[in-house]
Amino acid sequence: MTDGGAAGPVRPVAADPGPVVSAAERAAMARARLMGEQVLGSTSPNPAVGAVVLDAGGRVVGEAGTAPPGGPHAEVRALAQAGERARGGTAVVTLEPCAHTGRTGPCADALLAAGVARVVVAVPEPTALAVGGAERLRAAGVDVVLGVEQQEAEHGALAGWLTGVREHRPFVLWKVAATLDGRVAAADGTSRWVTGPVARAEVHRLRAGCDAVLVGSGTALTDDPQLTVRDTDGVPAARQPLRVVLDRRGRLPATARVLDGTAPTHVSRAADPAELLAELFALDVRRVMLEGGPTLAAAFLRARLVDEAELHLAPQLLGAGLPLVGELGISTMSGALQWQVVAVDRLGPDTRFRLRPGRHTDGPRDPQEGD
Amino acid sequence: MTDGGAAGPVRPVAADPGPVVSAAERAAMARARLMGEQVLGSTSPNPAVGAVVLDAGGRVVGEAGTAPPGGPHAEVRALAQAGERARGGTAVVTLEPCAHTGRTGPCADALLAAGVARVVVAVPEPTALAVGGAERLRAAGVDVVLGVEQQEAEHGALAGWLTGVREHRPFVLWKVAATLDGRVAAADGTSRWVTGPVARAEVHRLRAGCDAVLVGSGTALTDDPQLTVRDTDGVPAARQPLRVVLDRRGRLPATARVLDGTAPTHVSRAADPAELLAELFALDVRRVMLEGGPTLAAAFLRARLVDEAELHLAPQLLGAGLPLVGELGISTMSGALQWQVVAVDRLGPDTRFRLRPGRHTDGPRDPQEGD
Ligand SMILES: NC(=O)c1ccc[n+]([C@@H]2O[C@H](COP(=O)([O-])OP(=O)(O)OC[C@H]3O[C@@H](n4cnc5c(N)ncnc54)[C@H](OP(=O)(O)O)[C@@H]3O)[C@@H](O)[C@H]2O)c1
Ligand SMILES: NC(=O)c1ccc[n+]([C@@H]2O[C@H](COP(=O)([O-])OP(=O)(O)OC[C@H]3O[C@@H](n4cnc5c(N)ncnc54)[C@H](OP(=O)(O)O)[C@@H]3O)[C@@H](O)[C@H]2O)c1
Repeated sequence: MTDGGAAGPVRPVAADPGPVVSAAERAAMARARLMGEQVLGSTSPNPAVGAVVLDAGGRVVGEAGTAPPGGPHAEVRALAQAGERARGGTAVVTLEPCAHTGRTGPCADALLAAGVARVVVAVPEPTALAVGGAERLRAAGVDVVLGVEQQEAEHGALAGWLTGVREHRPFVLWKVAATLDGRVAAADGTSRWVTGPVARAEVHRLRAGCDAVLVGSGTALTDDPQLTVRDTDGVPAARQPLRVVLDRRGRLPATARVLDGTAPTHVSRAADPAELLAELFALDVRRVMLEGGPTLAAAFLRARLVDEAELHLAPQLLGAGLPLVGELGISTMSGALQWQVVAVDRLGPDTRFRLRPGRHTDGPRDPQEGD
Repeated sequence: MTDGGAAGPVRPVAADPGPVVSAAERAAMARARLMGEQVLGSTSPNPAVGAVVLDAGGRVVGEAGTAPPGGPHAEVRALAQAGERARGGTAVVTLEPCAHTGRTGPCADALLAAGVARVVVAVPEPTALAVGGAERLRAAGVDVVLGVEQQEAEHGALAGWLTGVREHRPFVLWKVAATLDGRVAAADGTSRWVTGPVARAEVHRLRAGCDAVLVGSGTALTDDPQLTVRDTDGVPAARQPLRVVLDRRGRLPATARVLDGTAPTHVSRAADPAELLAELFALDVRRVMLEGGPTLAAAFLRARLVDEAELHLAPQLLGAGLPLVGELGISTMSGALQWQVVAVDRLGPDTRFRLRPGRHTDGPRDPQEGD
């Protein structure tokens, strides 16, 4: 059994969290991650936690994600659904239940009050403020398991909040659509539409899961995008991420659609990506979608401030036009930025790559390999 | 039942070749296509046909691909394996058995002599010279089915030969390896290795299935490739495709590795891709692998002389360097060359796209779509 204890977060290898949890608990953990994903974009600066409550027989009797700030945490909502059926049961949660009283009471106390016998957790609480939930539960005789499928949870809905805790900046998801030859716009500047309707719908889904959507002034001026979350009929969603334009020279005209008032907008004069992210962090943004332009993408990549990328490739060739990413200061093959392909799938006629930074955060790869 | 008849090749829709063949025959057809693929690269100018013989009970009793020129055709080889067990059985063949006497006797006669009761064919014979096999068989009381999974066979091992029959030129398979941002070489010209060992092994497999491998003088001068088929230990294969360098200005030095004598080499001064393909066609080449350089690839694409493409994308970003394909004369998004993604899969850390030209052979796509 793994235990967060005082030594800091436990990172069990994916192969060996098996013995400590049942198949029902494992299924519940997958469901809990999904619950967290479903509230992504609505909880910041709080974590998008997911919780599932199983009764003593292993049946799902409650499931929920964190409510918007000021509302109840995921465990409390799931326990409310379960009611008396939680007694003697198990709570499966993506993040260790808190032990402190913030805007809501400690979740650990709610779990004790509900009479759960066991708590299964993916990510141990990493903040000094909220830590202690597992200890308090154990002291009361509850069986607590920490670190179950922790990596999956950390890369999922908790990524934004965890990046905030660890690096005091928002998580950055870079999204870009290009042709097979890596062109994001044609030579004449046209870029609508590189990808098809399925990929474009996915972009709106990604936006909805972020606290802010960011472009550079170049994209704002060329494409004049609205940057809102809309359904396939063009109807805007009730909740909209903050729209952000990085415009150091104040070129954005008052008539820009991004300033149309349908959603909040932040026009920044930050000098670089790090300064911008600090600004956004102060505005409670924990997850940013970087949507714009090869210039700004290159600035974020050079600063090593991209945490995940989603690349949509349309089955087209242009032979000319704007490159997928601007100058990175790399002149030789062995210096290329390395990525890990997490998944490749189809979006209608287009292909989606889900990517995470590879070895490049540790410098260029072994030059031997480039020979 | 479909019938080629006098009206020319039948093209059944993929959904409806069902009623005419059994599950065993369908499985045999898939196997026959594979038999054809296994001899690809060794049969030109003859088609790489595959044949499977089933006995009266539906069991496989013989299977083969076409032998090199002068040797027996696929049906004859498969029948030889089957011997007496072919009597009353079924021959499943990717191409209609010939009725003419070339270097070998007519396959239709061999099938009659073997006493098969039924012949299942994918592609009806498209040449006036060899046509008549189905008729001769039917006249002798054999049940003949034409057009079974015809498209799969046409896009498979028969593609090179069919392109020759229909367009009097070799089939062109363009293979290119690039980074995710569409760079085939870094700014300093380095390109080894964009992709990993699994993808490189696949390149050698592709070469082995072609009659010729082509690069431009640019690639020959920069990379000095050997262009041979080698196994993972670097041991050259017994049979090597023709190595071709398009070198209009005679810049290729005598010391180039492509001239090292380990395989035949053709240095061409053809003015354009069409002229080069005519030269190669006269040399009995039916399937060419275009391996080289953005300049030559662009020349072939502009001439609409690429029949299939295999794109290997390495999970890297360069931000600069040589583009995947040179200038195509396309300045706006709606003019992009459209491709059909036949398959996407992984080659180790790299991703393979198998592509066929899409609507672009019929001109640019509907401009409405570009708005
Ligand atoms: N296919 C796609 O996925 C996609 C997505 C977005 C855009 N695009 C295309 O990209 C084109 C626009 O490209 P772009 O590169 O000009 O757009 P961009 O990257 O969105 O904007 C670039 C501008 O951002 C500003 N900026 C602010 N801080 C910066 C920093 N630290 N480093 C660099 N730049 C900073 C700069 O202007 P200031 O100096 O004024 O601040 C710079 O000119 C359009 O044609 C658009 O269609 C395509
Ligand atoms: N990653 C990959 O898959 C890959 C594959 C191949 C090459 N590369 C890289 O590509 C670079 C070489 O690029 P490249 O574009 O110079 O190579 P290329 O396309 O192989 O060769 C271009 C040359 O071909 C000759 N040519 C002959 N007929 C032509 C025609 N009709 N149209 C155009 N050109 C014709 C031209 O020279 P003449 O006028 O002298 O005939 C031209 O300069 C190297 O850095 C190499 O590493 C990468």
